[in-house]
Amino acid sequence: MADIIEQDNTHQTLQEVNQALENGMFVHVRRMLQEMEPEDIAHLLEACPPKERQVLWQLTDPEEQGDILDELSEDVKDGIVAQMAPDKLAAVTEGMESDDVAYVLRSLPDDKYQEVLAQMDATDRHRVEKALAYPEDTAGGIMSTDFITIRGDVSADVVLRYLRMKGELPEATDTLYVVDLNEILIGYLSLATLITTQPDVEIHDVMEDADDAIPVDMDDGEVANLFERRNWLSAPVVDANNHLVGRITIDDVVDIIREDAEHSMMSMAGMDDDEDTFAPVVKSAKRRSIWLGVNVLAALAAASVSNMFEETLAQMASIAILMTIVPSMGGVAGNQTVALVIRGLAVGHIGDSNTRWLLSKEARVGLINGILWAIIIGSVVVLWKGNFLLGAIIAGAMLTNLLVAGIAGVCVPIMLKKMDIDPALAGGMALTTITDIVGLSVFLGLATLFLVQ
Amino acid sequence: MADIIEQDNTHQTLQEVNQALENGMFVHVRRMLQEMEPEDIAHLLEACPPKERQVLWQLTDPEEQGDILDELSEDVKDGIVAQMAPDKLAAVTEGMESDDVAYVLRSLPDDKYQEVLAQMDATDRHRVEKALAYPEDTAGGIMSTDFITIRGDVSADVVLRYLRMKGELPEATDTLYVVDLNEILIGYLSLATLITTQPDVEIHDVMEDADDAIPVDMDDGEVANLFERRNWLSAPVVDANNHLVGRITIDDVVDIIREDAEHSMMSMAGMDDDEDTFAPVVKSAKRRSIWLGVNVLAALAAASVSNMFEETLAQMASIAILMTIVPSMGGVAGNQTVALVIRGLAVGHIGDSNTRWLLSKEARVGLINGILWAIIIGSVVVLWKGNFLLGAIIAGAMLTNLLVAGIAGVCVPIMLKKMDIDPALAGGMALTTITDIVGLSVFLGLATLFLVQ
Repeated sequence: MADIIEQDNTHQTLQEVNQALENGMFVHVRRMLQEMEPEDIAHLLEACPPKERQVLWQLTDPEEQGDILDELSEDVKDGIVAQMAPDKLAAVTEGMESDDVAYVLRSLPDDKYQEVLAQMDATDRHRVEKALAYPEDTAGGIMSTDFITIRGDVSADVVLRYLRMKGELPEATDTLYVVDLNEILIGYLSLATLITTQPDVEIHDVMEDADDAIPVDMDDGEVANLFERRNWLSAPVVDANNHLVGRITIDDVVDIIREDAEHSMMSMAGMDDDEDTFAPVVKSAKRRSIWLGVNVLAALAAASVSNMFEETLAQMASIAILMTIVPSMGGVAGNQTVALVIRGLAVGHIGDSNTRWLLSKEARVGLINGILWAIIIGSVVVLWKGNFLLGAIIAGAMLTNLLVAGIAGVCVPIMLKKMDIDPALAGGMALTTITDIVGLSVFLGLATLFLVQ
Repeated sequence: MADIIEQDNTHQTLQEVNQALENGMFVHVRRMLQEMEPEDIAHLLEACPPKERQVLWQLTDPEEQGDILDELSEDVKDGIVAQMAPDKLAAVTEGMESDDVAYVLRSLPDDKYQEVLAQMDATDRHRVEKALAYPEDTAGGIMSTDFITIRGDVSADVVLRYLRMKGELPEATDTLYVVDLNEILIGYLSLATLITTQPDVEIHDVMEDADDAIPVDMDDGEVANLFERRNWLSAPVVDANNHLVGRITIDDVVDIIREDAEHSMMSMAGMDDDEDTFAPVVKSAKRRSIWLGVNVLAALAAASVSNMFEETLAQMASIAILMTIVPSMGGVAGNQTVALVIRGLAVGHIGDSNTRWLLSKEARVGLINGILWAIIIGSVVVLWKGNFLLGAIIAGAMLTNLLVAGIAGVCVPIMLKKMDIDPALAGGMALTTITDIVGLSVFLGLATLFLVQ
């Protein structure tokens, strides 16, 4: 009878492990880890502060360490791999699929990587070198070279007997690839079709023609979009001459989809998406301070705008009190548009054919919300400060800034993308700088014109 | 020979379609659409402004409309479904899998939904009603009820002959489920195992024991985490009595993973993740203005903090000029932490066992960056304004605010989650309000104490 899966108990396990480690019960922890799957141990390690993580790692079964490394996120994996001796690394990666070995070894400095290779046997070394020859973020970097090819001119029965003789299929095999004598891909045969076909039927007659194959240098994000859109479970990868060179399965793609979507979210906050939640303090502080440095420049730019209106501010404190409202609203409205555009660019909904339409739509959304909030904030200010002109000025600035926010929210990410700068990383900051400067200039400028003698 | 997939040409197609529609060449467009796959037509519709989308929809093949609707995102799908007559809806959903029909019909108002059901034949109606009985965001809501069960006491050969007799397997079948006489799940048999097993071997001897099954009421996000962590391609769903009731395949899960990750990104900018990029202007303006309303309150709260220091501001314009810098830096630093914590909560890395460690880490990161930027900004202000005391005051405020930002960045999302409020939605805004108020109060407070007579 099946166990119904209860809720995730990582944190309960982690508390138990914590306690056992504090009491020096290493044997108990080792036994606990032996009963867990590699992916659960990986999850546990990810949820650990660095010092504990090292102790735990030492207690894992060396036989399983390769699989655990493969399941870890990049930052955490790199931290562990950096401290392992070359011969140990060669040992733990033995028997793993070549794309997984490539993932584990990719971050090593060159000399250490050569040492690891030297410890491997010739076949493994060759396979890994081949896998590492493709850049990490391409189809070649995520494909596996472990797949089954058959000829088209044999019967289903022959194929079945051939597979039975093999005894085991590569992980996640759902499709066999039909190739000609030159290893050129000509068709697919799903296991489901093979099973439901009469034994004497020839493969040629039941295979699906290979109409789509992924080029080995395709960007991994595009590969993920294709899998998602076409609901594929696996897909063949071919080189420029249509030779079958690998196979991508959906479990590799799932990681990319998650990473890409996380990348947008983390980048918009100025964070590296590889960042380990439990990274050492100094490392985290260093990484984040780059982004704070960019923001300091933006904040100083806004301050120098205010500085140009020093006399106005000196004459009327109310203006200083109210001057943060218009930039704040512009930043929020603009970032709404930026988020929409970044997502649209990522999934491929936004392109030359509809940019103009989108721009006009977002400008009109900005105008409508500009009018709405101009009236509301204008009225609040008239009631609060008893100054009708001040209310009219803030209303005018609000309307202008929300309109600008809508337009800039579309243009900034699209222009950044054209300039090959990641819009998720730079879009929000660039937008906020624009709305800060426009909001402050218009509000303080109007106030200087109409309110100050 | 396989076509190597070229880059995505949606926008080229869209421009061609645009031009053809402008020239009234409807027959040409209809022919173009006939040559496209449903998922590509869906992608094209998503990239269309609303008016054009309606025209295009009218030109699609009614036979394919069901599959197209299934591939559309929620907001776009709802817009089209709302305008279709009940009998047409019943017709296009004929023959679709029950979970897909449930997706298409879920947004209908109750009376129209009843009309659609009335147009279906009894079997379909029953299946759809069953699928719609489960809430949308649970395992039951995403599972398919189309799967193959076998008995354990038969030989592999019997199973193979049974499948050959069926002729076709349900979509994306990679596993057969072994049940006992009471339909209780006792094991799995992957197609790969079935194929590589000798014909006379009994299923009992080669099946894997069913150790994990998904309860029908499990949250869909948790289901997605499980699939991702365990690299599943499909998994059985059981009711409280361990009866097999459905099957979840990875293609449904991929959508959830993408949506969940997008949800965090869009929510952090105050956007609804269902939002259609090309939604009508008024609808968009309405949705976004809610979030702007929340921000107005936050901005007014900050303004009333400044208002308490009106006299200080009136005495020294430099203070007004500089007062936006400290809140801005605090907001950026705090939102870095918020993004990290939201991701950690979403993937389950953060829990009771490590909150305290994380809090101390983020506080220390805040302290380090606080000291760094206090020195830098303090020096800039001393050089710019030639006022040593003013530099010291802004440095002190900066240090305090970045420390507070780190602490609040951890506490706010975790507390929101405990209160069952989505941290991705409310976290950033709550954090920014805190860093604005703290930043302004400390800076203006210190300035009032030390600078103003």
